[in-house]
Amino acid sequence: MEEKKKIAAKWFTELQSMICDAFEELETELSTGPKADLTAGKFEKTPWDRDELDQPNNSGSDLHGGGTMTVMRGRVFEKVGVNFSEVHGTFSEDFATKIPGAKESNGEFWASGVSLVAHMQSPLVPAVHMNTRMIVTSKHWFGGGADLTPMYPDESDTAEFHGAFKECCDRHDPNYYPEFKKWCDEYFFLPHRNEPRGIGGIFYDNLDRKGWGADFAFTQDVGKTFKDIYCDIVRKSINKEWTDEQREHQLVKRGRYVEFNLLHDRGTVFGLRTGGNTEAILMSMPPEVKWP
Amino acid sequence: MEEKKKIAAKWFTELQSMICDAFEELETELSTGPKADLTAGKFEKTPWDRDELDQPNNSGSDLHGGGTMTVMRGRVFEKVGVNFSEVHGTFSEDFATKIPGAKESNGEFWASGVSLVAHMQSPLVPAVHMNTRMIVTSKHWFGGGADLTPMYPDESDTAEFHGAFKECCDRHDPNYYPEFKKWCDEYFFLPHRNEPRGIGGIFYDNLDRKGWGADFAFTQDVGKTFKDIYCDIVRKSINKEWTDEQREHQLVKRGRYVEFNLLHDRGTVFGLRTGGNTEAILMSMPPEVKWP
Repeated sequence: MEEKKKIAAKWFTELQSMICDAFEELETELSTGPKADLTAGKFEKTPWDRDELDQPNNSGSDLHGGGTMTVMRGRVFEKVGVNFSEVHGTFSEDFATKIPGAKESNGEFWASGVSLVAHMQSPLVPAVHMNTRMIVTSKHWFGGGADLTPMYPDESDTAEFHGAFKECCDRHDPNYYPEFKKWCDEYFFLPHRNEPRGIGGIFYDNLDRKGWGADFAFTQDVGKTFKDIYCDIVRKSINKEWTDEQREHQLVKRGRYVEFNLLHDRGTVFGLRTGGNTEAILMSMPPEVKWP
Repeated sequence: MEEKKKIAAKWFTELQSMICDAFEELETELSTGPKADLTAGKFEKTPWDRDELDQPNNSGSDLHGGGTMTVMRGRVFEKVGVNFSEVHGTFSEDFATKIPGAKESNGEFWASGVSLVAHMQSPLVPAVHMNTRMIVTSKHWFGGGADLTPMYPDESDTAEFHGAFKECCDRHDPNYYPEFKKWCDEYFFLPHRNEPRGIGGIFYDNLDRKGWGADFAFTQDVGKTFKDIYCDIVRKSINKEWTDEQREHQLVKRGRYVEFNLLHDRGTVFGLRTGGNTEAILMSMPPEVKWP
């Protein structure tokens, strides 16, 4: 398992770099609109180590390790965080009851992953979320997924996003796409609003089905698929003009994102309940939001 | 108990009216600054009935009753909601385990209260929260409190706010103020930020100590004390000039408010878990927020 942890963590850092490079490339492709005169954005990279954070761990869990927080505040990407982390420790007794295999490991766990949320300058370019992770307790599994949140859903974007993940899933198992799409629709739903968060995508967790190697290969494919399809979707709308009214709509819609992340998101809850780096976890919050 | 419910609910509507009147009065007292040319705000009042809401109850709890949502978007109060509600129903099985006396009532409950959150135009005027409520299961109790969130804490405001609630508490029991102030400090704390939400105030819950009449009298006093002291504090700073930098600081600080409300607030969780009126519950969200 130690070798597998190393391989997975190494992949997550590689994926982080590939995505950051691709997003920086998109920043250079803006040619019109109110933000075109700004300089193309670049990612800022901040490594962190839990033991050196000036932030007490009030979570009741014991946590060590760290990661790299990368954030870009650009002219296409208003705020995008792409975070890598590799942590280990002991869950609080209470939280351990909620995690598979944690009772049998006496709460000990290891986790590594990459997570990404992008909030865009243009209300015509969808926001997006992607996360892939490997977790080890007395069990081990992969989880993750990607989902798209357009402010104004566009049929062709929706079809292409779903199409790309269907192809990705089908390369590994014909049952994955219907199962993981459904899971995504159910998971990214705001019951108090009776609204889906966006147009969906795929979501999976506790994946330990075909052996570590095959499950890892699927998880890698999800990351690569995300990078390619999201860049295509951004590129299509990057130079469209937008109105102040569309921007207002975007700011309000972002409020739903905040509500979901703080009320329901597993990654946010996992991070905060284990005493993770708050700044990295809440990097997913939109730069500007309205609840008018 | 039926008579007591009526008396309490009537008081909560009276308190709502008194506060709305006092806040509309403050709107007329603005004479300088960037918002002085706007028209003084007035509250909009929207009665609602759970059974008539076009919003399915996905909470797993059964809920009936309703309330009055009043909101003002003014020139002093950027957004303030003062909500009254009186509801009854049956908690979901899961949620019933978390509420005193709900197991013995087979999940049946009644609740009424008034809750208020004010987000101000000026970063030099503190935001504030106040809530008082009566809840009945097989037990019955009062809860509530008030706490102040200045963007730039001011010693004299802090001293006056605490002084007013100390006097209020002392009129009922000399032990209340130290106990309820401590409870407030512990409750309005963001563990993931290691930050208090504001400068505190008082918080109490499950109050069933001196007989219903005395506990109700205390709860009434908390509401009246809040109205008077908060209006005094607003009045002191209403006409101070502020800078763009101070406004930015306010928008970021409001993010902490959102984090607390969605991650920790009992009222928000109670409302959403019982299938309350989402629009009324999330009226507490700030009109504009930044996570830069």
